[in-house]
Amino acid sequence: MSVGAAARTAPFYQLGKKCLGISMELHVANRQRLCRRLQDKWKSLMSQNSAPAPSLSGVFVLLQGGSDTYRGDSDSANVFRQESFFHWTFGALEPNWYGAIEVSTARAILFIPRVPDDVALYDGRPATPSEMLKKYATEGCFYTDELVKCLKQWNTTLLLTLRGMNTDSGRITLEASFPGIENFKVDNELLHPEIVQCRLYKTKMELEVLRYANRISSAAHRHLMRCVKPGMHEFEAESIFLHYCYFNGGMRHVAYTCIGASGCNCAILHYGHAGSPNERVIQDGDMCLFDMGGEYYCYTSDITCSYPANGRFTNDQKIIYEAVLAASRAVLNAAKPGADWVKLHQLAEEKILSNLIQAGLLRGSLEKMMEVRLGAVFMPHGLGHLMGCDVHDVGGYASDSPPRPSAAGLRNLRTARILQPNMVITVEPGCYFIDQLLDEALQSPQLSPFLVSEVLQRFRNFGGVRIEDNIVITETGNELLTDVPRTVEEIEQWMSSGGAEDRL
Amino acid sequence: MSVGAAARTAPFYQLGKKCLGISMELHVANRQRLCRRLQDKWKSLMSQNSAPAPSLSGVFVLLQGGSDTYRGDSDSANVFRQESFFHWTFGALEPNWYGAIEVSTARAILFIPRVPDDVALYDGRPATPSEMLKKYATEGCFYTDELVKCLKQWNTTLLLTLRGMNTDSGRITLEASFPGIENFKVDNELLHPEIVQCRLYKTKMELEVLRYANRISSAAHRHLMRCVKPGMHEFEAESIFLHYCYFNGGMRHVAYTCIGASGCNCAILHYGHAGSPNERVIQDGDMCLFDMGGEYYCYTSDITCSYPANGRFTNDQKIIYEAVLAASRAVLNAAKPGADWVKLHQLAEEKILSNLIQAGLLRGSLEKMMEVRLGAVFMPHGLGHLMGCDVHDVGGYASDSPPRPSAAGLRNLRTARILQPNMVITVEPGCYFIDQLLDEALQSPQLSPFLVSEVLQRFRNFGGVRIEDNIVITETGNELLTDVPRTVEEIEQWMSSGGAEDRL
Repeated sequence: MSVGAAARTAPFYQLGKKCLGISMELHVANRQRLCRRLQDKWKSLMSQNSAPAPSLSGVFVLLQGGSDTYRGDSDSANVFRQESFFHWTFGALEPNWYGAIEVSTARAILFIPRVPDDVALYDGRPATPSEMLKKYATEGCFYTDELVKCLKQWNTTLLLTLRGMNTDSGRITLEASFPGIENFKVDNELLHPEIVQCRLYKTKMELEVLRYANRISSAAHRHLMRCVKPGMHEFEAESIFLHYCYFNGGMRHVAYTCIGASGCNCAILHYGHAGSPNERVIQDGDMCLFDMGGEYYCYTSDITCSYPANGRFTNDQKIIYEAVLAASRAVLNAAKPGADWVKLHQLAEEKILSNLIQAGLLRGSLEKMMEVRLGAVFMPHGLGHLMGCDVHDVGGYASDSPPRPSAAGLRNLRTARILQPNMVITVEPGCYFIDQLLDEALQSPQLSPFLVSEVLQRFRNFGGVRIEDNIVITETGNELLTDVPRTVEEIEQWMSSGGAEDRL
Repeated sequence: MSVGAAARTAPFYQLGKKCLGISMELHVANRQRLCRRLQDKWKSLMSQNSAPAPSLSGVFVLLQGGSDTYRGDSDSANVFRQESFFHWTFGALEPNWYGAIEVSTARAILFIPRVPDDVALYDGRPATPSEMLKKYATEGCFYTDELVKCLKQWNTTLLLTLRGMNTDSGRITLEASFPGIENFKVDNELLHPEIVQCRLYKTKMELEVLRYANRISSAAHRHLMRCVKPGMHEFEAESIFLHYCYFNGGMRHVAYTCIGASGCNCAILHYGHAGSPNERVIQDGDMCLFDMGGEYYCYTSDITCSYPANGRFTNDQKIIYEAVLAASRAVLNAAKPGADWVKLHQLAEEKILSNLIQAGLLRGSLEKMMEVRLGAVFMPHGLGHLMGCDVHDVGGYASDSPPRPSAAGLRNLRTARILQPNMVITVEPGCYFIDQLLDEALQSPQLSPFLVSEVLQRFRNFGGVRIEDNIVITETGNELLTDVPRTVEEIEQWMSSGGAEDRL
């Protein structure tokens, strides 16, 4: 195969001298892990005589990167963010690329568009293939229009393309396609389960990036806590968060649309979209629920802080907050290798329900509440989700994992896995007062006996509380990546003391 | 037609109490203008016996709004920004809508998705059709799954759908399509030229929004000028601009990717994209070229400020800056109804070239330089472009406009129109030192005699200067929408005096 020698010493990514530098070795290691899995898979297929080609020689993974997107029919391109599988594999930040890996050797070859002179005038002199090869520490780089020629020259016997369903979205991956692919044998089933298994377990180098994303996003939340005041609009809080992450952390993108909820909006789980664009004025006496996470180099974070806008909890706010905090701390204590995520979800529910019993919102037996799934009325979403290059990362459900549960609340879990070292997952118990769910529960012969409706009435416009941390499962337990004030005392103390940190 | 009565008093859009409030009358007026044009067009077709239906009764415009977009295969939706034709017509900010207009009456009907209960849990209680009808001051609102039923009930004889090419991007509009459209007669040729003509001339209400977008973006530029320091990264400047616009002006989106160029990057016309993400450290002695514009309610702005990072022009910087400023002021003086945009482009070139002659970079006859198109070496882009709901707004070239010129430089003009009242256009002369173009010119027997290569050599790493303002053509001249320091003295004075304005 006619490709240059690897240049694996210097190349790294860094945006700004104060931001994290990342060695391209991260992707070399990802590709090696992927190829080892594919090699093992191949051996097992060979032994069953079911391999799609006579030998591994000439077998290439072929991925297509993301493309530029535009506003309507205009020439106004959105700021490009790489597709996550492609980024995980190659680290390339530019649009409209292809990448290949020789499975037997893990050698990687990038294919970049040839830029016409008139485009170069606007976008700057394009890097040459030999420059890109060095930038991304691959063994080869060619122009996209050379893809067919190269694959033929390398005696390609089989292309492994990526086709599989995302279990959070139900949507299908972008499968590589190019003019001339009809001349090659293609298998689009082998690759997806293997690469998903690789993405499920984070390497040391990936964990460094995820730690950084959490560190900056935590600092942004701490900063925001001291900026928030009644009278501010929710979108102003979003703007403060975004600016902190980008200015201080080089995060041009955030991991997901900022949820800048206050008051009763805190009961809308994904508030902040274009139809509800964080437009409310935050009132004195409101709780805030700010679910915001920056991302760096396509590695995400996902943090929720809930606190009173004026810096002091009322008694009712304390009741709900501490119910959720009890759930959060119980799960953080129990999350370790071998722990069952579905059971941890139920543990969170138990903590919330027993706190609500104690505060007089519910009555009756906790055990029976769990049997009838009362927890789903107050926490209708799952306890958390895998996190990586996607904020809802791939691998939640796969052929090697327990299936999606069917019971109320549990069916919304984004994974039902047994935790293992190097999984990264969010822990985000919540307690919400959602009219639709409360009304249904009050009508339900099974659920209504547990509800103290006259007390619940007091909380009808409360909104909700969510406490969301990100953890990595270690050999013995877990490492908490998120660093924000969490207890009532910590929050009140933090919000009442101004800070040198609050420069912008 | 079974639709409610118009409710045209209260509805308006506003994000935050300090931001501009916009009456939905803006879109009522747009629709009325569009229908008047279509009615006139129809009459003329009827008189030629070439109308696509026997009468205007039952003829409806049907537009499809933009859809949610996602990151790769994930469920992470990008923050939705409405497609510009749909926004201009209906003002609706939500994704996945349709909108119809009865051409004979200008009555408007929106079609919104029916939201399943489990989605409502995440996104909040969806507004009902009767709420949306009030919010957007239309005469009707139904669910999308009622579209076919409604069109039949209204005895639809013809649907006018939108199909046409954007002359900046070469891309085709999204043409409305829905299951069941095959039951209706469709014309996709009539609508596009008429709606483009409407968008070309801004109403008083539209001008108010464009003024506001420019006002906030100008203030953001002024703020940024006082924040910039050598040692800062270009992306930090971008972050400051974005935060100012969103926090103070309710601008969740900007009109285009921020160009935060410094030093030699100023010669890259569209610097700042994912491949060159504003990552350089700004050096003492650099010029900055910050081309950034916020947008509010899908109405854009597009402003470029060029200035020395340290606040003091060197002699060479002054030479180039004042050449461009001379061009800018000459065009602003001459831009009025009847002025020829191509001639204004040439006027800008003349000013720049004559300044370069005076400063010793060029030698010879200005007239001959113009003949051989030397200006295109230093200003390879057009003088400016129409601006509205798209930053490069539609209507640059159409059947009623002069064709695209073919000469060097002029062929990059985004319009060749004769200016008319209520057109909004950018004025953005620039002077750049681009290696590729200088090398080509030095090789050209036609161009090289004019170049004083030993002096030009001094400017090889200069980068470039662009000065970009937005104007609206009035009955007698133009109104300058942009308000930033422009002369060397104004800039040096502004940058050297701190400011109470610089809170953030």
